[in-house]
Amino acid sequence: MTARKRTSSVTNSENPLPPPKKTTIASADDFHLAPPKLGVIFVISSLLCSLYLYLLCFHYNVDSELKRPILINAGLSLVGFFVTLKLIPVAARYVLRRNMFGFDINKRGTPQGDVKVPESLGIAVGIVFLIVAIIFQFFNFTEDSLWLVEYNAALASICFMILLGFVDDVLDVPWRVKLLLPSFATLPLLMAYAGHTTIVIPKPLVSYFGLEILDLGRIYKLYMALLAVFCTNSINIHAGLNGLEIGQTVVIAAAILVHNVMQIGASVDTEFRQAHAFSIYLTQPLMATSLAMLAYNWYPSAVFVGDTYTVFAGMTMAVAGILGHFSETLLIFFLPQVLNFLLSLPQLAGIVKCPRHRLPKFDPATGLLTGTKDGTLVNVYLRIFGRKSEKSLCIHLLVFQALACAFCFLLRHFLAGWYK
Amino acid sequence: MTARKRTSSVTNSENPLPPPKKTTIASADDFHLAPPKLGVIFVISSLLCSLYLYLLCFHYNVDSELKRPILINAGLSLVGFFVTLKLIPVAARYVLRRNMFGFDINKRGTPQGDVKVPESLGIAVGIVFLIVAIIFQFFNFTEDSLWLVEYNAALASICFMILLGFVDDVLDVPWRVKLLLPSFATLPLLMAYAGHTTIVIPKPLVSYFGLEILDLGRIYKLYMALLAVFCTNSINIHAGLNGLEIGQTVVIAAAILVHNVMQIGASVDTEFRQAHAFSIYLTQPLMATSLAMLAYNWYPSAVFVGDTYTVFAGMTMAVAGILGHFSETLLIFFLPQVLNFLLSLPQLAGIVKCPRHRLPKFDPATGLLTGTKDGTLVNVYLRIFGRKSEKSLCIHLLVFQALACAFCFLLRHFLAGWYK
Repeated sequence: MTARKRTSSVTNSENPLPPPKKTTIASADDFHLAPPKLGVIFVISSLLCSLYLYLLCFHYNVDSELKRPILINAGLSLVGFFVTLKLIPVAARYVLRRNMFGFDINKRGTPQGDVKVPESLGIAVGIVFLIVAIIFQFFNFTEDSLWLVEYNAALASICFMILLGFVDDVLDVPWRVKLLLPSFATLPLLMAYAGHTTIVIPKPLVSYFGLEILDLGRIYKLYMALLAVFCTNSINIHAGLNGLEIGQTVVIAAAILVHNVMQIGASVDTEFRQAHAFSIYLTQPLMATSLAMLAYNWYPSAVFVGDTYTVFAGMTMAVAGILGHFSETLLIFFLPQVLNFLLSLPQLAGIVKCPRHRLPKFDPATGLLTGTKDGTLVNVYLRIFGRKSEKSLCIHLLVFQALACAFCFLLRHFLAGWYK
Repeated sequence: MTARKRTSSVTNSENPLPPPKKTTIASADDFHLAPPKLGVIFVISSLLCSLYLYLLCFHYNVDSELKRPILINAGLSLVGFFVTLKLIPVAARYVLRRNMFGFDINKRGTPQGDVKVPESLGIAVGIVFLIVAIIFQFFNFTEDSLWLVEYNAALASICFMILLGFVDDVLDVPWRVKLLLPSFATLPLLMAYAGHTTIVIPKPLVSYFGLEILDLGRIYKLYMALLAVFCTNSINIHAGLNGLEIGQTVVIAAAILVHNVMQIGASVDTEFRQAHAFSIYLTQPLMATSLAMLAYNWYPSAVFVGDTYTVFAGMTMAVAGILGHFSETLLIFFLPQVLNFLLSLPQLAGIVKCPRHRLPKFDPATGLLTGTKDGTLVNVYLRIFGRKSEKSLCIHLLVFQALACAFCFLLRHFLAGWYK
């Protein structure tokens, strides 16, 4: 309500676009989003959530004082799922009006490649997540709860990250600045972090160090900050296929949930269990709201998620790992992202030339993708296992992500007792 | 770094605009912002801050344990001032590239009315504010500090409000939705609020109520939520002149600072003084970053602030008032906004027709503004006191704001003892 003529929604009428060549959508107002792929989401969520729900409700005897808030949180997350499902078509109309759209490069040369796909819909997911996470406090925490400090710091960090991600999507911040943004967003969490700052020295190394537990103090906080920066950026650069950004997030989120419930089930230490419950409170809403957007983002994508989503998802999982005190485990869940980061290092560091996009080459005739020489996991996978369609490649990479998580559980199982 | 061709920065080249009629700026890249009006800012900040600094440093004997963090916060705010001053020209180029600009309606018909003015620069102020407020924790709070809960909740609320304000600026949310956004943003604060929920019954009314202190419990929280919604929206609708949005904010912020330091000076209760110091920690960075943007936003505006700024400023002051426990005083500082709200009610409620903009009428020949029949303080002031230039009207309204704050101090002085 300020003293100016807004140009946002009237851009089209004031600056008429040249006649569209082949674009399917003429204007934002007669725009209709493809319906959500609920069948796919049903299959994916059954695969991902069934083990977690089984462990929580039947396998372990989680006492009701802890189970009640987890189930309330799950209920709120379910509401968040449906709200996100309803909100995305509305938000898609708004972002299109602001000319926030992209063309799908992996479909260039086909009619689908000329469709304007609404961009940065992660903002809808982020806002619903925040509202669910905030309202949940009402049901769980009393005002003098010790957890409230860390919970609010977590919310401040995640919210700041969403804000910076959305600013990046809108204003297109240079990527070297972008890499640094998570370190600002992680500050509230670091300041409020009151948990342990010790690491347990692996047993085979105890004789070399001379102690079993090492208190890192402020250095531990630096480690936390680096972890948050890594998680956030690593989701952002392992991307480029329809559904891959959200797909990897929901797979890792499912692994986090299973890990948390296993730890809760195996322990009797109240504080330890609280830390893992805390992690669940953040991961369940992430899972639910992400699945809702995946219904629109699965191949062929009707909406794009934007950096808003990738940085939000990365930061939320980092926070869940830090406050649940299982950051080493989290890093093994992130194995494909670590691989992708290592493969990307030469280009990120500027040793090898880095183009604007590092995507595979799409052949419109066959509809298959071929790996290029750019150092990403997507390209290397294609170079090793041959040409694939976008959808099948995405599924392969998600299965690989799930295998990395399974490997992590195996590793924990076999090393338990010997390693720590 | 995702699978699409970004359209943000390439819009101009892909969809060539029709030849600009008389626009002064051809493209975002050869854009140069008018230099900041540092002389004006020097005068305004001397007028506003001198009393506060005198009271803090000389008049009252504030003990060093409280003075030290206040001065550290002031130092950080000063750094924030210079960072904002440097950041705004950069951010202005970025928002212009995204076609986020407006034309100054109060200059329509003059060459200045055809200049594209970068919009929503409040985002730069908001981000610098958040970083200053976050870094400050490092110098003040220990990890087990009781204040940390409320401070982080305050940060989460303000951050969420900036996010929603920026989303509104970018996507142009319908105004009825907009009115509700602050109630979501205020939730983290309400959840974490651990302060008193009692009100002191005014002495003349004690005999009617039969008690001196009334505990409102949850109703008090509802009152806090309504206060935040009111402050946020009332700054947003008392706008429309170059410099008015920031001007009113810095005047009120100065009053808040003076009030806080007077309360600290007059009391010996540690918790009471802490609450007011807390309020200072939020208000000083708001003051400093706002003054930096005012250097660009003062008449004639080189940048516009956007809803991002107005909602951020309103929410920050509401939070400062709530956590400093002086919400009634805050409402008297907001007297012009209350008047403007009451004048606007018929149009906001839909009883009287409400146009898109409710601005005075500008006469390009004389350069003067004439009041229209729309119910805003700006129009009513012009109808009562006659036609004025935009700059002089803004100064008049800011003086009126300062008088309202002075009136509040007088009222407190005379009613003290009798009323409460």
